[in-house]
Parts: sequence; C-alpha cells; structure tokens
Amino acid sequence: MTGLAERIRGGDLRALARGATIVENRGPQADELMAGLFPYTGRALLIGITGAPGSGKSTLVDQITTVYRAESKTVGVIAVDPTSPYTGGAILGDRVRMQRHHADAGVFIRSVATRGWMGGLSRAATDLALLMDAAGRDVVIIETVGVGQDEVEIARLADVTVVVQVPGMGDDVQAIKAGIMEIADVFVINKADLPGAAKLEREIRNNMTLAQQPSCWTPEVVKTVAHEAKGIDDLIGAVNRFREGRPARAQSAEVWGRRLREMLREKLLERVPATDLDRAAEDVAAHRRDPYSVTRDFLERIYQETQ
Amino acid sequence: MTGLAERIRGGDLRALARGATIVENRGPQADELMAGLFPYTGRALLIGITGAPGSGKSTLVDQITTVYRAESKTVGVIAVDPTSPYTGGAILGDRVRMQRHHADAGVFIRSVATRGWMGGLSRAATDLALLMDAAGRDVVIIETVGVGQDEVEIARLADVTVVVQVPGMGDDVQAIKAGIMEIADVFVINKADLPGAAKLEREIRNNMTLAQQPSCWTPEVVKTVAHEAKGIDDLIGAVNRFREGRPARAQSAEVWGRRLREMLREKLLERVPATDLDRAAEDVAAHRRDPYSVTRDFLERIYQETQ
Repeated sequence: MTGLAERIRGGDLRALARGATIVENRGPQADELMAGLFPYTGRALLIGITGAPGSGKSTLVDQITTVYRAESKTVGVIAVDPTSPYTGGAILGDRVRMQRHHADAGVFIRSVATRGWMGGLSRAATDLALLMDAAGRDVVIIETVGVGQDEVEIARLADVTVVVQVPGMGDDVQAIKAGIMEIADVFVINKADLPGAAKLEREIRNNMTLAQQPSCWTPEVVKTVAHEAKGIDDLIGAVNRFREGRPARAQSAEVWGRRLREMLREKLLERVPATDLDRAAEDVAAHRRDPYSVTRDFLERIYQETQ
Repeated sequence: MTGLAERIRGGDLRALARGATIVENRGPQADELMAGLFPYTGRALLIGITGAPGSGKSTLVDQITTVYRAESKTVGVIAVDPTSPYTGGAILGDRVRMQRHHADAGVFIRSVATRGWMGGLSRAATDLALLMDAAGRDVVIIETVGVGQDEVEIARLADVTVVVQVPGMGDDVQAIKAGIMEIADVFVINKADLPGAAKLEREIRNNMTLAQQPSCWTPEVVKTVAHEAKGIDDLIGAVNRFREGRPARAQSAEVWGRRLREMLREKLLERVPATDLDRAAEDVAAHRRDPYSVTRDFLERIYQETQ
C-alpha cells in the first residue's frame, strides 16, 4: 500500500482531500489507490438521499450531519450535483455548502459535478464513498437530485435510500413518486409545515400498497421541517430501524454487479483517442460515413490493438 | 437496403413502428437498419424540450404538435421518461400521452424508458430521432426531464433546445436555471398566468447577462399557458428565428462526437457475458477481490478474445 493510502486510512484530512482529487481525475493512479484501500471498506453506513429540486435535501443533509456529529460520529458528504453539467463544476459547490461544518474536521464534504460527458457520475460517487469509508468515516451521505436516471441509480447504491418529498408540487411529481416508490426505504415529507402535508402522506401510503416492495419492507414516512431542525431524530431513527438486522446493501453482489458494469463501460471508452473520435464525428456530420459502421470500425481497432 | 428500411422511408407507419421496436431492442439488426437509413437523415427539424417536473412540458409538446399539424407538417415525438427506471416502462406511456392525436397518422409518438441499466437513454433517443427523420417526419420533438445529466444532454443534441420554466418554484430550481442557461436557445415561461411570471422573466434575463452564450445568441423568452393554447405561435416563431441561417446543430461534428462516444461505450459493454459479471460481483461483495483488478481482468479478457 502506498504512503497516501496509509495516511488516508489513518484519518489524515489532507490526504483524504488529495485522494478525492485523484479519484475524480481518474487514471491508473486512482485505480491503484482504490485497489489498495478496498480491503478496508465496508464499515461505513452509506445513506442515499434523493428528491426533486426544491425539496430541501441540502438542509436535511446539514441537519442529519449535525445530529451524527453530536454523537461524535464522523461524516462524509458527497453532493452529486448534475444541475450544472456545463459550467465545469457545481454552482453550489463545497465552499457554499454547509458552511457551519466548515471548521469541523469530523465533516468531509465533496461535490461531484460531471465534467462535460455523460456517465461517470456513478463511478465518481461510488469511489468517493469507498474512499471516505476506508478513511474511517462512520457515516457517508450521498445527496442526489432524484429525477434523472443516473442520480436515482446512485441513491439506490446506498445501504439506505431516503426519498424526500414536499407538499404542494405538481402532477408530474406524482409520476416520479410512483417511479421512485420501489427505491425508497424511508420517505421524508420535508417542509411538513406547508399545506398539503397530510394529503401527500396519504398519497405516499396509497402508492405504497400498490407498489411491490421487493425488500418486504414497508417504508416509514417521516415528517421534517429541515430548516427548523424538526423531525431529524425521527428520520435517523427510521434509518436505523431499516438497517437493523439487514446486510449492508452497498456491499451486496447486486449493487456490485451494477457498479462493475459502470466501471467497465468507462474503462473501455478510454481506449479510443479523442482526436480519432472527433475526426470520425466530422465524417458522420458531413454524411460521408454512417455512425454505425464508424462504431464497428472503432470496436475492431480496439480489439486488434492488443494482439 | 432492406425492405423494411424502404417501407419506413416510404412513410409506412407500421414499418416505422416496427423499426422503432427493433431500434429499442438494439442488436445487429438495429445497426443494419439504421446504417441503411442514415443517408436519408438530416432533413427533419429536431426540437429538444426540457424542463423540471411539473413545468407542463407534455402539454406544450401537445400544443406545438397541433400547430405543426395545422400547417400539414408531419410530427414525431420522443418522450424520454426516466422517472420510472424500475417499472420497465414509462408510466405515462404512449397510450396516455397526447390522446387527441391518437388517430392522426401525421403524429408518431414513442416513449423511451430505460430498461434497468444506466446509460443507453441517449442512444435510444438519438436512433429514434434519426429513424423518424428518415421516415420523412418534418419535425421531431424530443421531450426530456431537464434535471438529470443524461436528460439535459439529450435535449442538447437537438437543432433547437427549448428550456421550460414555471413561476413560483423553489430555490434549487434557480440553481438548475443557472446550470441550464448555456443550453437554452429559447426559454419558455409556461403557466405564465401564475403569480411570479414577471419575476421569473427578470431572473432569466439577469442570468442571461451573466452566462456566456457560446452561440452568440441571446435566447428569446416566450410566455405560454400551454393548457389554454396561449403563446404557442410565439414559441414556434422563436424556434424558427433561432434556426434561420444556422446550420442544423443535430448534424454537427460536435454533436456527433458526443453521440459516437455514447454508441461506442454501449457496444463495448455488450462483449462481457452477464453471468461472468454477476459472479465477479459476488466476489467483490464478499471482499474476496477488489473491483479495480476485476475490471482490469475483464478488459484484458475482452481484448484477448479477438486474437
């Protein structure tokens, strides 16, 4: 194991920050680091928190962090922020987020913004979670916007998936709710002081009876007012009750099957030089070639190169 | 060219529907069909419409379709519906969508739901758009939920990207708005009869001056009340003004660069048998192996297989 990995395991915050940057930048160095740290993972509680924009997820994460810190547990936060794929970084980045935990070494926060390409979001979030786990964080929280496919998927890779809803949103949200039923282990009705909270709870419970719960678990519905720190203990209680006597899902073969596929897909694409792809794209744009035969040729070339 | 491709080009609706199914199921047959049709693409106007849940995108698409139909233009609609990745299909599927166009052969609608895996959404939407283009549709509309990375990306692949907003949504939406500024060619304030429409317009215009507009185009801001069919002509006017004198972006080298990468990534993963991946996932879950060396071994195996 490298010196960096050892320092990360030892809880060195600067080493952890450097490790996170290495992981985000990918490459062989990242793989070596993570392979060395992997045996030391599997201890942290991984909580996925997902919900539509405006549902107050960040405030909720902030409050949960405060409660865990009061119990002297160390916390890692991964904010997956796909709302700004084109600015090269999260707008509400690490600096702005959770400022009151800023000086607390027991809270390590990292925002993940994708860097201009599709995919890779899931891999980055997974690796960062493993990194924080190996660094000895007791709790790792992954916050995602629960609408896009990738983001919902990421939340699903956690030990406990918390779905946040707020009263008084439109009809389309109901459709999402139905789609998200299967992944929720705990429902949170945040901003529960707004009109419509009781109606929303009824709807959630009605949907629950319709949806199959593959885990044979009826999700608890918890009401919170995150900006007033109300209901946070209830939420953590529900998380703990779900986890009781259950194997860590984040370490299950099913979840690893998904993760391995994502890792493999990303690695495979790295073999093709960007300039060649760009030149081919020009040919296709000019209708000199069709994209299907271009893709086939690239595949053949990738396979032959290793002969 | 196969008989099916010829029938699709000739405007045969049943052939088009069969083609869409072939494309969604992927495989060599899909590639062959699309390679044959590709030379006949590049004619349709591709409109991407994206917005948060509850912004009334579907109603807007419905109204736009009505206007184009009144001009005797044929329309294809691709509804990318990632809100239900776990039910194996879109909840608000083709049957429910746009029922009043149901009997109109000039409107061809297809919902795309991802089938349990990350990625692939973009490829499916792209192929369906090309298919409808080759089938002679004058206008192809791609509707996506503008929050997730994939969905925003898809909207960006169109000739014109329309971003839909509604008054009175929360703070997080503002963040999305900022993130989405760069991809909007036209802004729509839908439900413009709601309080806060003027405020939203001011915010959009303020953000606009801050954001770089790489296309040197200041997006028009159009107000609509989709369910009352108000402002739809204005919207189509703004779309046309944007398109005037501009090359078709959907056929640009930049967009094809993105598409080719996505196609390649997907094809590469097809080479690995699912059973082998699942077995490896069990090993990783049991901590018998680390996922990084597992991925490396799979890569080596893929490359060696063709020797």
